[in-house]
Amino acid sequence: MEREYLIEKIISLAIEEDINTGDITTNALIPEESRATAEMTAKAPGIVSGLDIALRVFKYIDGTTVWTPLVKEGERVSKGDKIARIEGSYRALLTAERTALNILQRMSGIATATAIFVKELEGTNTRLLDTRKTAPGMRLLDKMAVKAGGATNHRMGLYDMALIKDNHIKVAGGITNAVKQVRASIPAGIKIEVEVTDLNETREALAAGADIIMLDNMTNEAMAEAVKVIDRRAETEASGNMNVQRLKEVAATGVDYISVGALTHSVTALDISMNIVPNK
Amino acid sequence: MEREYLIEKIISLAIEEDINTGDITTNALIPEESRATAEMTAKAPGIVSGLDIALRVFKYIDGTTVWTPLVKEGERVSKGDKIARIEGSYRALLTAERTALNILQRMSGIATATAIFVKELEGTNTRLLDTRKTAPGMRLLDKMAVKAGGATNHRMGLYDMALIKDNHIKVAGGITNAVKQVRASIPAGIKIEVEVTDLNETREALAAGADIIMLDNMTNEAMAEAVKVIDRRAETEASGNMNVQRLKEVAATGVDYISVGALTHSVTALDISMNIVPNK
Amino acid sequence: MEREYLIEKIISLAIEEDINTGDITTNALIPEESRATAEMTAKAPGIVSGLDIALRVFKYIDGTTVWTPLVKEGERVSKGDKIARIEGSYRALLTAERTALNILQRMSGIATATAIFVKELEGTNTRLLDTRKTAPGMRLLDKMAVKAGGATNHRMGLYDMALIKDNHIKVAGGITNAVKQVRASIPAGIKIEVEVTDLNETREALAAGADIIMLDNMTNEAMAEAVKVIDRRAETEASGNMNVQRLKEVAATGVDYISVGALTHSVTALDISMNIVPNK
Amino acid sequence: MEREYLIEKIISLAIEEDINTGDITTNALIPEESRATAEMTAKAPGIVSGLDIALRVFKYIDGTTVWTPLVKEGERVSKGDKIARIEGSYRALLTAERTALNILQRMSGIATATAIFVKELEGTNTRLLDTRKTAPGMRLLDKMAVKAGGATNHRMGLYDMALIKDNHIKVAGGITNAVKQVRASIPAGIKIEVEVTDLNETREALAAGADIIMLDNMTNEAMAEAVKVIDRRAETEASGNMNVQRLKEVAATGVDYISVGALTHSVTALDISMNIVPNK
Amino acid sequence: MEREYLIEKIISLAIEEDINTGDITTNALIPEESRATAEMTAKAPGIVSGLDIALRVFKYIDGTTVWTPLVKEGERVSKGDKIARIEGSYRALLTAERTALNILQRMSGIATATAIFVKELEGTNTRLLDTRKTAPGMRLLDKMAVKAGGATNHRMGLYDMALIKDNHIKVAGGITNAVKQVRASIPAGIKIEVEVTDLNETREALAAGADIIMLDNMTNEAMAEAVKVIDRRAETEASGNMNVQRLKEVAATGVDYISVGALTHSVTALDISMNIVPNK
Amino acid sequence: MEREYLIEKIISLAIEEDINTGDITTNALIPEESRATAEMTAKAPGIVSGLDIALRVFKYIDGTTVWTPLVKEGERVSKGDKIARIEGSYRALLTAERTALNILQRMSGIATATAIFVKELEGTNTRLLDTRKTAPGMRLLDKMAVKAGGATNHRMGLYDMALIKDNHIKVAGGITNAVKQVRASIPAGIKIEVEVTDLNETREALAAGADIIMLDNMTNEAMAEAVKVIDRRAETEASGNMNVQRLKEVAATGVDYISVGALTHSVTALDISMNIVPNK
Repeated sequence: MEREYLIEKIISLAIEEDINTGDITTNALIPEESRATAEMTAKAPGIVSGLDIALRVFKYIDGTTVWTPLVKEGERVSKGDKIARIEGSYRALLTAERTALNILQRMSGIATATAIFVKELEGTNTRLLDTRKTAPGMRLLDKMAVKAGGATNHRMGLYDMALIKDNHIKVAGGITNAVKQVRASIPAGIKIEVEVTDLNETREALAAGADIIMLDNMTNEAMAEAVKVIDRRAETEASGNMNVQRLKEVAATGVDYISVGALTHSVTALDISMNIVPNK
Repeated sequence: MEREYLIEKIISLAIEEDINTGDITTNALIPEESRATAEMTAKAPGIVSGLDIALRVFKYIDGTTVWTPLVKEGERVSKGDKIARIEGSYRALLTAERTALNILQRMSGIATATAIFVKELEGTNTRLLDTRKTAPGMRLLDKMAVKAGGATNHRMGLYDMALIKDNHIKVAGGITNAVKQVRASIPAGIKIEVEVTDLNETREALAAGADIIMLDNMTNEAMAEAVKVIDRRAETEASGNMNVQRLKEVAATGVDYISVGALTHSVTALDISMNIVPNK
Repeated sequence: MEREYLIEKIISLAIEEDINTGDITTNALIPEESRATAEMTAKAPGIVSGLDIALRVFKYIDGTTVWTPLVKEGERVSKGDKIARIEGSYRALLTAERTALNILQRMSGIATATAIFVKELEGTNTRLLDTRKTAPGMRLLDKMAVKAGGATNHRMGLYDMALIKDNHIKVAGGITNAVKQVRASIPAGIKIEVEVTDLNETREALAAGADIIMLDNMTNEAMAEAVKVIDRRAETEASGNMNVQRLKEVAATGVDYISVGALTHSVTALDISMNIVPNK
Repeated sequence: MEREYLIEKIISLAIEEDINTGDITTNALIPEESRATAEMTAKAPGIVSGLDIALRVFKYIDGTTVWTPLVKEGERVSKGDKIARIEGSYRALLTAERTALNILQRMSGIATATAIFVKELEGTNTRLLDTRKTAPGMRLLDKMAVKAGGATNHRMGLYDMALIKDNHIKVAGGITNAVKQVRASIPAGIKIEVEVTDLNETREALAAGADIIMLDNMTNEAMAEAVKVIDRRAETEASGNMNVQRLKEVAATGVDYISVGALTHSVTALDISMNIVPNK
Repeated sequence: MEREYLIEKIISLAIEEDINTGDITTNALIPEESRATAEMTAKAPGIVSGLDIALRVFKYIDGTTVWTPLVKEGERVSKGDKIARIEGSYRALLTAERTALNILQRMSGIATATAIFVKELEGTNTRLLDTRKTAPGMRLLDKMAVKAGGATNHRMGLYDMALIKDNHIKVAGGITNAVKQVRASIPAGIKIEVEVTDLNETREALAAGADIIMLDNMTNEAMAEAVKVIDRRAETEASGNMNVQRLKEVAATGVDYISVGALTHSVTALDISMNIVPNK
Repeated sequence: MEREYLIEKIISLAIEEDINTGDITTNALIPEESRATAEMTAKAPGIVSGLDIALRVFKYIDGTTVWTPLVKEGERVSKGDKIARIEGSYRALLTAERTALNILQRMSGIATATAIFVKELEGTNTRLLDTRKTAPGMRLLDKMAVKAGGATNHRMGLYDMALIKDNHIKVAGGITNAVKQVRASIPAGIKIEVEVTDLNETREALAAGADIIMLDNMTNEAMAEAVKVIDRRAETEASGNMNVQRLKEVAATGVDYISVGALTHSVTALDISMNIVPNK
């Protein structure tokens, strides 16, 4: 499965860049047959994401690793909460530690930030979307973390949804033409979104049969009006310079979705530590 | 070259996860033979890093892309400064845009933050080091950005330097043994660093022949004393909970290096935009 | 690009399985520097598809190959019509010949058969769809050939559209639940199709918000009624045991799409020959 | 083993193109831990081929799959006969179904057609050969199916036998020279076949030491005479425009082999269905 | 082409293991744009082999390398003779030097030793064969070097010829059965060799239709008799404990081939140096 | 782990080049389910190396192989000593035999030769080093064999140590500059070695802060003097035209290391046989 394949690739790449010809310190000092047990602990409050992926890092290096998650994907933890227990080859635990933490801390950081945004939308019908502004190679994992934080995924990439933007429209000679050409070209199961910046464009996109209309960098007032014009005949997405302060009032315009790039392009890692003790 | 290979891999993975079976919108609307010119512009002040890598993203998709960098790797830009001009296939520019920006913005964000830390160390003999807390798959690029920001790279991974930590020492039965065993095992060209937490361990590491001694989570006073004890017979690295506020006083202890994980584990992307205009 | 990547993979696999450690006959007899010119000729009437792919086979083996297509992708040819002229390394032409023809003949065979089905639908609003019953590894190329023959592509695979079938519905406890759960799980840009077998299910699928409703193995009368019930609030697809004889009357039911597996699972290659003459 | 490797490649490519980032419907609706049992049933009479390969598709996606074949490779089935029972992850069964069937149906289609040709040769000393006109990437599997249908494999590709054709002979300046040069160049264990079109060429090929002589597009009378001239000092192969009607009389010429391209270039899939029921 | 692919793989593996994350010395000191010219010189007399492969090493690292061979593949050189001139990126020359020399020196060492054996067979009808006792990953290159030294290649591997040995015969219940079963299983173009140790086995192999008979560890007298018995109805190969001293008398038995493992399993590298001078 | 990855690659490449589309003889004659037991026996005295790697070859082909080593890595054996017992699929044992032996014989040959050199250094403080003159693709295994023979590994490649040579020094404008530039460029954990040819250069390298000084092609007298000048402030390596006869007197100069290329560039395989008996 390509999904598994992409995940495998980023894990193997992360391991390869770190380990390369071997963890020369650990290989010199820790006997091959030693086993140990580690615990991961949250050093700050947040939402945990990436448990399955961290496990795969350990398994990648040592297939006999036994992993006992102590929280669930997407669960909130307080400072000091245990996150997981890992039993396995002592060498493998030391060698995999940094790579596993790098992934877990980034994903949990994303989930933690996402949850803050999602909380702002409570009580509205508006859902939070992510964007394609993810770390290179981490698209699937970044988006998985966004989901763990309670938001909805926007398109995964350029292939699974048509998003007609400014440049496309100019070349096609207008929104109507652009939608028509795209519809004739893409497989039958994929929606078309059109980026608009005012009411005229909104009306044209609607008439052209857009499935989703992206209200790009529009004022809250303009968005509210667009939502009224569209009248549920297409879905609506507010986009551009979103931050947690604006979120509630943007939702008040009635848009179906708000998309936020910062969820994944500017991440603060959640502080998580790992303590390893050799088995008796 | 593995270096090229690792860079190629993260680029190809980033492109693959985004493009997959194709940019269905662009392929439907932009004629295959159209060419266009794009400009990248800083939307905030900072240090630019990753120009060569961004270029490679465009080249990966369209080998005929012509790239004219308007600043140098590691150069400071102000808001509104042009960063690069790119001429190539219109389709390729649209398809590669997001991936190229994701890389350039992350690397420039790292370089920008690094430069703030480095500035704190001006006038001292202490150099700033990065860590292995990088985004998965981005190790080489994250470290390249740290260099662009003016700092020195710590080890690239577990393979190119021995770093003897707590767990290793316990298993080996003390620092002296640990250093000896490692020296017997690793190739002749690689240094040994030992992590210590007090003066006794510092003295033992020094006697054992450590090339570098990492003063881990020690107070500034303890570090100053350790530096005196070591007396340049080994290099010294201050590590643990470093932030920009502490940097100057830590440097005042006389350590050779200070390592800071946040440089790469919690990155704020530098805002950079790309504007594309079709060629006449 | 994954699309390019998948195409590259099937080409390289086809070449590898044929050439392996080398075309031992040609390498022994044809001087490395000899160049030659080949012509491909249709030995039977049909629609040509796969020209770009055949070219890539030659280029894969010899980058200097010059390829002059004499017809366009999707163009109809008569017996005896020249399809393409190829100039390049004599060795490469001989070595690549079979692989290039295997691809071109299969794709042209698919396009030719598709065109016959499409012709049946002329004058109706119903469009012909392909299925996932393609030759292993040839999905993209088989679907490209279907397009060249004038039909529309159904989903490319399991990833780019949700298709809720019998088994899914049972587990979810009904169509309504199934659609709801899928909508909550998939990215925002992807449509949901529901397979139904009678009017009750049709109504439930419509109420649940299905984007497309697949009328599976239903009589023409039942389909006509379903189309009426749906009344353009969702798209409709007729599926199951379709053949060229039935096509017109199925279209008369008013369905938007008819899907036909035989287009790609039972292909008769279009007969194409290649004649090679050494350059003077 | 390259053989395993080529099979693995076509399987992984077939799965990748279908599943890509995941079976989004099944993943949304079927619990990860559910298990189910499937049965494959012939919907038409024929020869079954590809059982091991179909199993590998299921195993590729879920290593715990238990596969119980109910017929043997190459066995004849009637409409309604059960072919195999498969127990495993419910998700995996749904996800792998189409890919497994695509392979099994194609291979069984080839075996079924081959058996019809082979039957025509019963009571003669002539054996049926396949050609290199296989589906791209499916060479090994197509040839495996031909064997299951009772025929003999011709060369696997350009690497495992020398076949000197028209173009080669011209460049070498005659058959004699061509055979001599090839013999000097190839490893000691590989046979040389020469393509001839009349009796003179037949005699020259024989004198040159050809191991096999291909009688290309010759009349039955000419072939009979050639067989007499050769008098078992080399093997003989009849080739060109063979069909099931001609087969018996061509065999009557006494040739050792008859090769038929249509066995693999124009395949009608054998209709096979798969029914999945969840385990209690 | 698999051949190219296998060569590419061993080259890329050799480069990867040496260069890994980069030639850190050269990258630090030699400006990226510097160009230089190198000359390779024989430091001992011998036969040169591997020129094309050495070139590919340089090209792999720098596509702009210009390579001027000063001798031909298989040509004899004296101490001090120039072998090749290489112009290219200064960095690339320094980085590729060791890998290119490692290949060239091994292959030339093999060719040089082979030529000594071949010289012993001058004036006889017996040809020298290599074996499968090659350095791992170097099969194609080791065999290419054997050819450059004037010998003939035995089978490339387990796939391109059937060689029935002791263990096989026991399981099959005798030579006759073994040959019959193999013939029924392998493609039509591949020869069968049988290993025999006395005259009885020789006769049985001949009667069974073996294409080649390997006389394994037999005395010269026994081999001479076997050759007589066979009387050119099959080819013959002498094998086992061959060395340069025995060669002439073994040839005198009339065998067609003598195979020698030491040609490739115990290689003395030919001493070749490379001198690099920067361009003005 | 890259280390594992490189080992996996050379094993898979060795297997692929030998087996390719399959061991056609064994597959035709040995039933798939047969199991057998093999013993490896030394046919000459030496040091065994590569046991783990040989095991991996068998496991690669048949995961159920049971391997019982009868000696340890680096252990000395006499002619006739059993080295290992292997139980597994009969087919797999026959198919893997040659590849496993090729690796084991080469590595044991290297270890055996190394031990002879190491013995010469007994009673001195000088250690034997290998070089980068290894067989392409075999770097890690060749170096593992050198260790098994009792010597120390020099750098693994161009990436894990800086070695400043003639060409580098010229471009940098002297040793002092060269060392300074390299230090500024490489990660903090890597040593710098400088190649010198006389006392002046030795002094400059020492003053520049070289960690290791390579005394290249110097007389024993000059080396003794250099060692005195350096006075343990840097490590020293004697290099150039070393052979077993010179070793003792070179060691007498007091150098820390002597490096010998012939250990790996001109290897005589240790003769090892493998006898296979089917299980009852």
